[in-house]
Order: sequence, then structure tokens, then C-alpha cells
Amino acid sequence: MQNTMTNVLERVNSPEDVKQLSLEELNLLAEEIRQTIIKRVNITGGHFGPNLGIVEATIALHYVFNSPIDKIVFDVSHQCYPHKMLTGRKESFTNPEKYGIYTGYTAPEESPHDLFKVGHTSTSVSLATGLAKGRDLRGGKENVIALIGDGSLSGGEAYEGLNNAAVLGSNIIIIINDNDMSIAENHGGLYGNLKLLRDTKGLAENNFFKALGFEYHYIDEGHDIKKLIELFEKVKDTNYPVIIHMHTIKGKGVEAAELDKESYHWIVPGTLDKKESCSFVGESYESITADYITKKYNQDRSVIAISPATPGVSGFTKEFRDKAGIHYADVGIAEEHAVAFASGIAKNGGKPILAVMSSFIQRTYDQLSQDLALNNNPATLLIFWGAISSADATHLTCFDIPLISNIPNLVYLAPTNKEEYLKMLDWSVEQNSYPVAIRVPVGEVITTGVEDYTDYSILNKFKVEEQGSEVAIIGLGNFFELGKKVKSELIAKLGIHPTLINPRFITGIDNQLLETLKENHKVVITLEDGVLDGGFGEKIARFYGSSDMKVLNFGAKKEFTDRVPLDVIYQRNHLTPELITEDIKRCLS
Amino acid sequence: MQNTMTNVLERVNSPEDVKQLSLEELNLLAEEIRQTIIKRVNITGGHFGPNLGIVEATIALHYVFNSPIDKIVFDVSHQCYPHKMLTGRKESFTNPEKYGIYTGYTAPEESPHDLFKVGHTSTSVSLATGLAKGRDLRGGKENVIALIGDGSLSGGEAYEGLNNAAVLGSNIIIIINDNDMSIAENHGGLYGNLKLLRDTKGLAENNFFKALGFEYHYIDEGHDIKKLIELFEKVKDTNYPVIIHMHTIKGKGVEAAELDKESYHWIVPGTLDKKESCSFVGESYESITADYITKKYNQDRSVIAISPATPGVSGFTKEFRDKAGIHYADVGIAEEHAVAFASGIAKNGGKPILAVMSSFIQRTYDQLSQDLALNNNPATLLIFWGAISSADATHLTCFDIPLISNIPNLVYLAPTNKEEYLKMLDWSVEQNSYPVAIRVPVGEVITTGVEDYTDYSILNKFKVEEQGSEVAIIGLGNFFELGKKVKSELIAKLGIHPTLINPRFITGIDNQLLETLKENHKVVITLEDGVLDGGFGEKIARFYGSSDMKVLNFGAKKEFTDRVPLDVIYQRNHLTPELITEDIKRCLS
Repeated sequence: MQNTMTNVLERVNSPEDVKQLSLEELNLLAEEIRQTIIKRVNITGGHFGPNLGIVEATIALHYVFNSPIDKIVFDVSHQCYPHKMLTGRKESFTNPEKYGIYTGYTAPEESPHDLFKVGHTSTSVSLATGLAKGRDLRGGKENVIALIGDGSLSGGEAYEGLNNAAVLGSNIIIIINDNDMSIAENHGGLYGNLKLLRDTKGLAENNFFKALGFEYHYIDEGHDIKKLIELFEKVKDTNYPVIIHMHTIKGKGVEAAELDKESYHWIVPGTLDKKESCSFVGESYESITADYITKKYNQDRSVIAISPATPGVSGFTKEFRDKAGIHYADVGIAEEHAVAFASGIAKNGGKPILAVMSSFIQRTYDQLSQDLALNNNPATLLIFWGAISSADATHLTCFDIPLISNIPNLVYLAPTNKEEYLKMLDWSVEQNSYPVAIRVPVGEVITTGVEDYTDYSILNKFKVEEQGSEVAIIGLGNFFELGKKVKSELIAKLGIHPTLINPRFITGIDNQLLETLKENHKVVITLEDGVLDGGFGEKIARFYGSSDMKVLNFGAKKEFTDRVPLDVIYQRNHLTPELITEDIKRCLS
Repeated sequence: MQNTMTNVLERVNSPEDVKQLSLEELNLLAEEIRQTIIKRVNITGGHFGPNLGIVEATIALHYVFNSPIDKIVFDVSHQCYPHKMLTGRKESFTNPEKYGIYTGYTAPEESPHDLFKVGHTSTSVSLATGLAKGRDLRGGKENVIALIGDGSLSGGEAYEGLNNAAVLGSNIIIIINDNDMSIAENHGGLYGNLKLLRDTKGLAENNFFKALGFEYHYIDEGHDIKKLIELFEKVKDTNYPVIIHMHTIKGKGVEAAELDKESYHWIVPGTLDKKESCSFVGESYESITADYITKKYNQDRSVIAISPATPGVSGFTKEFRDKAGIHYADVGIAEEHAVAFASGIAKNGGKPILAVMSSFIQRTYDQLSQDLALNNNPATLLIFWGAISSADATHLTCFDIPLISNIPNLVYLAPTNKEEYLKMLDWSVEQNSYPVAIRVPVGEVITTGVEDYTDYSILNKFKVEEQGSEVAIIGLGNFFELGKKVKSELIAKLGIHPTLINPRFITGIDNQLLETLKENHKVVITLEDGVLDGGFGEKIARFYGSSDMKVLNFGAKKEFTDRVPLDVIYQRNHLTPELITEDIKRCLS
């Protein structure tokens, strides 16, 4: 067993132990934690810059406050590695055999020091305000601390939280961890104010936080444990809301990470060992997207790509952004604004293409419905990574179909290959009739080599890829490939030559085709790469409800899976050709 | 034909006509518009205070700017009556025979002067920023103006919009219509700043808008057309973002409305003719809710009712709020914060009861999923008005089932009468295992007179109210009563004695019971008071997909209806006992 634990960290098993250390030891501890993170994350991959930037502050927090009685809420919680190391979970960082045993986010099931399972941004202030109110209702006295990064302040929920926290009338300490960086650069008027405050060491009269009514403290030395402790001691136990504006350096201690904060926000294994930054070469749906948009705006000046602070998700690289100029807008972590903004652009003659990760489109249902769909403005939304996955519970990407497809007017498309994707994308950008969302395929690029000439303005027309009988397989988007495998299995195992259908439309069904299938099919199966509840397949089941047609819906059970391997999820949801074939056989008998 | 049109208004048929008027005539016009609104809204009902407060500003806007080339976006648009009167639609206010021909909100299908169909708050800045960006992409020069009330500034989308508008780098004029009032009182730190700015006539250094980087103008005389025109002229055609902070009086011109702004926000017909304010007497699900909570917090100090600025929706009257003290929190128009706040309270020993209208729960999907359900904190959510309705397209209340019920962990309940509601409510507040939402029944209170002793901790157990055969009717929530009528119709018309089921749980199905039904039933019908797509019935259809059971799902088609009478919607969706019985008959034959 390899054990990298060093001197001070070795003796720290809980926040109690931190409180016993001298300042010198605290500083040593910080260095040990930093080196441990560098080594471990370079081996396993993970959030790098955010954790390196918060080492000293985390130590000072645990030195001054009494967690878990005092309650610390981490925004996004991608900066919780030092916290985990100080709260009994250091072996997940120091012992290679145990690297995987704890998640990368706060998780109440791991430790009472973790209050919430979080991974989406801008939530900590609201959650902490709730903790504080719960405390006040029962007459408690503990401190409640919310940590939030400057990037997260662009999200509406953070503002709603601040607006309410300011008038709480009791103890809440909100630490703004200002490293002048979101995942990519910050965008928005607030960031001018944060810069002014940093430049004036917090002395400028023009102060966003004071305007909201907070007592405000600035600390420029966000890596100076002594000064952090002094300030935390000062605000501890105050019975009114306080803001600490803390200046830190993202990626602190690793030169490359300090210089290129975006690339080192999250790193893949081995990043530090490579001389050059490792950039993916070869075609991906992300590169196809960026290439299409680049070509498009060179022909048509009204085209604009939009990202809610996650350009990496959609292939909007630094190079793409720099070249695009006015044809690219990052709106900050503000999905609600992004959708309304796209609707407004489409209304006024522009051609917006908004790219969002499936997990984050959840942050803007009402804007999809009211600002966009109800107004029927022809914006294009690209939903990336929509699929059943082995991700953390906070970043699941299997709920976008129920979320988007049950909104009227919206057209949600599911391409199955490069050619379909490009045709749908171009149709969407050029048409003026509907808001359109496209579920960008996940995984390796599949190409047919044949251009797609489909007219997608004829809505809800499913494509029969192969005509068969007895069983019809409707394989949606990513799972069309699974449908092909089921077909082969049915031929091989049951001697059945099924009909294979690529529905392409998620938001409506092809009544005519489904009606025709009744003639010589007994079973229709649906395959969707997402949760079944409220999804695509259930609509097919409803359609056939009053007929003799048997329907089997395959997809994921409604549950929050948490880093469950994909094959395990597939197995338990019968998402393999073999298990599906068995179910069909049972249904036919 | 009665025609109340007076002198100046008579000559105004478009903004062009406004521009020809002298100041004296403009002032006369304001008075005529105000009197017209008072008379008309007192007859028809409608938004009263918001429209009276914006008369002069609307006239000044149309005097200075060139709508529809210059583009004015109204937030919520419940203050658009004067705008409609000046843009060719005055007969809907002056001519009693035409009172109903235009909607109460902006509607692009009515006029090119209306940019968006809106009714939810906090969206205008984002939408206008989009319009401005669209203009910039095509090299346009028009002015883009967003009007937003102080109350709407509590919503996260408004902040996201401001944060982005501030760095637009081109023309956008945002008018803050500050009447020191939301629907009820304002809540949040921002309102301290707005007061400071009003008190100092905009001169205070501590300025929320300047902190975001805006050029800022204050105007105290929000009802002085001359001064408004001067200021609008000054900012017109500026090529950078500008804030106008305009102080107005909600309900201006009607003493009672100025004094009791909340009651006169929206009034019912005849309100002004009554000596005392007309308050509903008798039991309602709203009064039952308020009474329960009052009783509860007197026994248990950890109970707290929460409203996102819509206390009227849930029976949280002024009297209730005043009495409740710390046991009531209005968080402003901030549904996202409200859900996270409730989750935090539940995590720290409190018992939060958050009441939200169905249409507005849409504003917080991600918080329901991530901040609440993923963390499994036992907060109680009350969803009011969830039903198919004849409402405006902006305020439909039929989408909450697909929205809420496909999120894991959450328990969504549908009581059918007072006793069930109270039992479910108390169970939810007292249990510690799940976040629970309750779809509060809509309409007159139905009471069985028999206390409900069900143990709702046994999840997804449907209740068989009457055992029959051949046909099983599953009537969810409000539509359980429809189920009873279908039962009678089946007995009378087909001689069938069906099984009648009250499912009570929306979020899961009773597999065992559904399995049993196969024995002596041929058809199962589901009835739900909401949209079918992604809803409850489809899950039953999926369950029976591989069996011989026929399933018919009844509910609303996925569409944005707009003030369509309920009987029309029911008719076209086959939601009458007669039509349902016919469909069952067809299915059985």
C-alpha cells in the first residue's frame, strides 16, 4: 500500500484536530493538502483549480468554526476536497487504493460535515438561508456559513438567495470566493464591481453587497491563514447577515493552472505530466457543432452561438470564441436568461443557437415554456450529453426528455448520426415556425456518408429504416444503435425480421405510421436513452392503449443514480439486446 | 351602443396621434385613460393598481419613442392597458360590447406593438436584451426599452437579465417602475436600497444599479408627463445601457387603491361600488390551509409557511401573515430560492410548508430536483390551482403533473376531499422521509364527514372506492368526481358496474392492484385534470402495455389554450361522462 500522507495531515482526522495546531502547523498542513490534491487529481482526474484555490480558507474555517454544529454550505461543492480531507475522509486523497471511495461533491451520506448533495451552481446562499431559518425557528445559536464563487453569482438563484439572506435578521456568513473566474471567463455587470472592489481593497463606495444591505468585509489575502482566521473570528457569532469578500487565486500553487484557469478547472488524469495541454483531435459532435456555426455566421451575420458559462460542453473552444466575436455570447451561469435572451434575439431577426448540457437545461423550464415556446420564436437549442450515464447524482443527463418534450409548440429532435444532426441543425436555424431543441447525439460520431435530405418541417414523421413484421423497434436518438442490435438478435434468436424505426421527433408521434403497424405487428418496443417516466415511450403506450398491440417501453427507471457504472444501469433496466429480446419473447408467447 | 370615449382619447388611434398632442392634451389624455380604466375594470374585473400607476409613463413612452420600430417590453404585462389603448385597441376599454376582445396581457397576435406574450414576472430585461442583440447582429438602430416593476426585481431571471444587459455595449433602456409594492409587500435586501434611492432622489452613493455598471437616472415625478418626456428624450438613442429609476404610485387616482395596494392589485367586478372590501366568507381549500397552519404552529414552533410573493393564492391573508410572525416568510417573487430555502429549513429541524400556484411552480424545476428531491429533505409543497382551466395562456395550471411527478424521490399527492387533504398535509408535515408535494383540490370544498385515517407512508397505494368489474375508473384528484359521474353513466347506459379507484399518489403506481384488475376487467380508464403528455395516465398505459388490458387516458391535449371556455376544452378532450362512456363502449366492442 502506497501512502503519501505526510507530517501534519497525518495527525488530522477531524476539525477538532485542526483547532489544536499552531499557525506554523496550519501553514504546513495547507502545503501538504495542496501537494496531496495535485498528486491525486493528476492521477484520478477531477476538479483542480477550484480546490487548490480554497485550501487555506477551508483550514481557517475549520479552525474557527465548529462543524458540524456550525454549518458550512459549499456552492457547487467542486471545491470540497480540502474539506473532505479535514473531516475524516483524507484516505480518499492520500491512499491510492481508496481514491474512489468518496464522491467529488459534498454528500450527507458520507459525513455529517456535508449538509447537502450539490453539484449545480448558485444554490448555497438559499440553502444556507434555509438552515439559518430552521435554526431560528428552534432557537438555535450555531453559525451558518455559505461559500460561493464569483462565477456562481451570475445565477439568478444566488441573487434571490442574497436578496433574502440580507433581511434574515440573524446570523449568516456568506463568503464570496472571488478568483475572478467562472469555468471560463466571467460575463456580466457584476464583475466590473467585483474588480473595482478588489482594486480598492473593498473600499469603493459603489458596492453590490452593501447595496443589498449586507455588512461587508474584504480580505485580499485569501491564502493567508492567519488573516483569514482573524476575520472569521471577527464575524463569528454575529447575529446579522455578513458578507466576506475573499480574494483567492484559482489553481494556486501550480503555475500552469494559475495561468490557464479554464483548462485546469477540471483535469483528466495525467494532465500535469504532459508538456503541452492535451487537446482532443478528431471529429466529435462538439467539433461538428462549432464548425457548422463558424461556417454559418460567415455566411449569415445574424447567427449567434450562446453558452451559459459552459462553452466546453458544446465545443466552443477558446479559439472558436475568439474568432466568433459578436457571433458568440457567454451569459454567465444564467440558463434562464439564456433562453429568454435567445427568444428575444429570434424575435428581432437574429438566429440564436443556445448550447446547454442536459443536466443544466433543468435550470430553465419556465423560460422554455413561457419566454420561448408560448411565443413560438424560432430559436435553436442544442442539448448536449443527453443520455443515461454513470455520472454523479448531481449531474445526471437523463431527465431532459420529460422536461422538454411535454411543453407545447417546442419541437424536440433526436438525430442518430452526423448527417441527420447537420440537416436538423440547419433546418432549425433557417426555419421561422418553431422553437427547436436538438438532442445532440452522445458518443463517437456515426456517419452514414449520405447527405440527409429530409424536410423536417413535416413534423412528427418517423422514418422506417427497415420494413419487417411481427415486432417493430422504435429506437430514439442514441438508442437507434441499440435498436439495430436488437434487430440482429431477434433475427438470430427468434427468427423474427422486425421493422426498425428511427422516430427522429421526440415531441410528437407519427399516428399514421403507428396505425399502419397494427396490420402486421404484434409488439412495438420503444428504446430511449433517458428516464421512462414522462418520456417518449409512454406516449406510444398511450397511443396503443385501446388496441391489441403490445407495447414494451425500454429506458431508465426514475431514480437518482450516483456513479453507478453504465453496464449495471443497463443490466437492471434491461437495456441490452439479449434482455430486450427475452422480454419480447415473453410478450409474444 | 354605449360609448364612454371622451375628447382627446377619441382622436388617438395610434402612437403617431400621441405625438401630435400638446402637453395640455397629453395631460387630458392621461386623465381620460385613467377614468376609462377605473370604469372598465370595475365592470369587468382585472388588474387595477398596476395600470393606474403607469398611465403617464406609457403616454410619455409613446410620445418619445417610435413603437413598434422602437421596442417596448412590459414585464408581466399586467400594466399594459394604457399601452393597448394607445396602440389601436381602445375600444376594448371604451366600448362595453368589445370589453372582452383583447387579452389582459401583451399579445403579439393582437398588435405589432406587443413584442411578447408574457404573464410571468421578471422576464422583460432578458427578453429586451435579446431584442437588442438581434438588432445589433443585423446592424439596426432602434431603441429597446424594458419596463419592470420593483416587485419583479426579486426574481432571479430579472437579475440575470440586468447582469447581462449591463455589458451589452449598445442601446437598452431599462425603466424600473418603482411603486414600493409587489402584489403584497416587497421582501428582500434590494428594497432597502430602492427606498434609500427614493429618499435621496437617486443621489445615494450606495446604488444597486450603478454597482452593476449602469448609467443611472432617477425621476421622482413618475406621473409628470412633461418631466418623463424630458428624461426619455435625454436617454433616447444612447448607445449604451441605461437605467431609469421611476417613482410611481400604484393605484394612482383612486384613494382606496392607493391606500390598500394589495387588495386593489387585481379587482373583481363591482369592487368600487361596495362600501367595504368584499372578502370571501365560507370554507375554501385556502382557508382550510391557513387554519391548519395556524393551529399547527401554535403547537409546534418549528412550522413555517412560505410564499413566493403570492400569499393570496394560498389563503395567506394579511391577517394570517400578521399573526404568524416568524412562522410566515414571503421570499419575494423567487420560487427558486423558496424551494431551496424550504429544503434548508427541513434539513435543520424546521417544518416548512411552501405554497405555490401551479403555473409558478414551473419557475423552479431544478431546485425541486437538485436542492430538494436529491437531498430528500422533508419539506411540504402545496400546489394550488392545479387543473385544466380557461385561463390566459400565460397562466395555465395544467402542466404541474409532468413537471413534478417525473422527479425521483418526490412524493406528489392528489387528495380528492377535505379530509384526505388534511390527513395528507399533516402526514407530510410530520414525516421525515420524503419531500412531499400536494396538489390542493380546486373548486368547492368536498367533505366526506369522515376523518381519513390512511397511513400515507405506505407509498403508491391506490384506494378502491367501489369494487366492480369489466371497467376500472382511476380518477385522480379533482377528477375523482368526474370518475363518479362516469360510473353512473356506465351503469345507466351500458349496464356496467365499474370499479372506481382513487389513486391518491401521482408519483407512483400500485402495481399489485393494477395486476389484480387484470382478473375481471377489460378496460382501465384514467382521468387527470391536467395535460396528458408526461402525466399520470401514460404510466398506467405503460404498465399494461404488455398485457391484454385496454387503457384509455383522459386529460388535456398538449397545447397552450388561451381563455378557452372550460366546457369547450372538456368537450374537445372528451372530458364529459357521456363522451367518456362512448369511448369506453367503442373500446369494449
